[in-house]
Amino acid sequence: MSDEEFRESGGRNTVFIGRQKPVMSYVLTTLTCLNNSPDVILKARGAAISLAVDVAQITIHRFAPGLRVADIKLGTEQLQSEEGGTRNVSSIEIRLTYPPEGQGEAAKP
Amino acid sequence: MSDEEFRESGGRNTVFIGRQKPVMSYVLTTLTCLNNSPDVILKARGAAISLAVDVAQITIHRFAPGLRVADIKLGTEQLQSEEGGTRNVSSIEIRLTYPPEGQGEAAKP
Repeated sequence: MSDEEFRESGGRNTVFIGRQKPVMSYVLTTLTCLNNSPDVILKARGAAISLAVDVAQITIHRFAPGLRVADIKLGTEQLQSEEGGTRNVSSIEIRLTYPPEGQGEAAKP
Repeated sequence: MSDEEFRESGGRNTVFIGRQKPVMSYVLTTLTCLNNSPDVILKARGAAISLAVDVAQITIHRFAPGLRVADIKLGTEQLQSEEGGTRNVSSIEIRLTYPPEGQGEAAKP
């Protein structure tokens, strides 16, 4: 799956984490998504996986204390390598959501 | 938590993923752990988080097809920085286990 196909694989509530932008830029995008959707999915692959975990942790601990990690999925994708073959790259999907009312909803900012 | 304390925080079935060794070395350690324990926990922090996901994926897809990701936990730890202050670093714990008999146990190598 090319970078372009990877980005098209998500819905409106999906934030694709790369390594082009500073971490706070992805945190801001995540918070913006949460204004329009009850949950948000952070997707990343390869070395950006660590950054996706940073984005999740910073969003929860600094900006949205009521937010929780609802689900994490790991995967493997095949990327076209420059030499013409394919190589495997790991991927992660972290779904963040506010828990149902009465389970921490009061902490929603 | 210093590197040393971090390594002491796990039990016998814990594999600490750093960035010193090649990925296959951690895969081998994981498989060795699984010979002595029904599950194994991969722990990593910072940039090594991506490598921990690689280790999980390679172990499952290439060496232990019956193995499953049972649980993933994200966290934040405080590290002493060289300037004397502290900085936050993200961490991950990936628990791998064989599902109960009748749910893929046949695939156990």
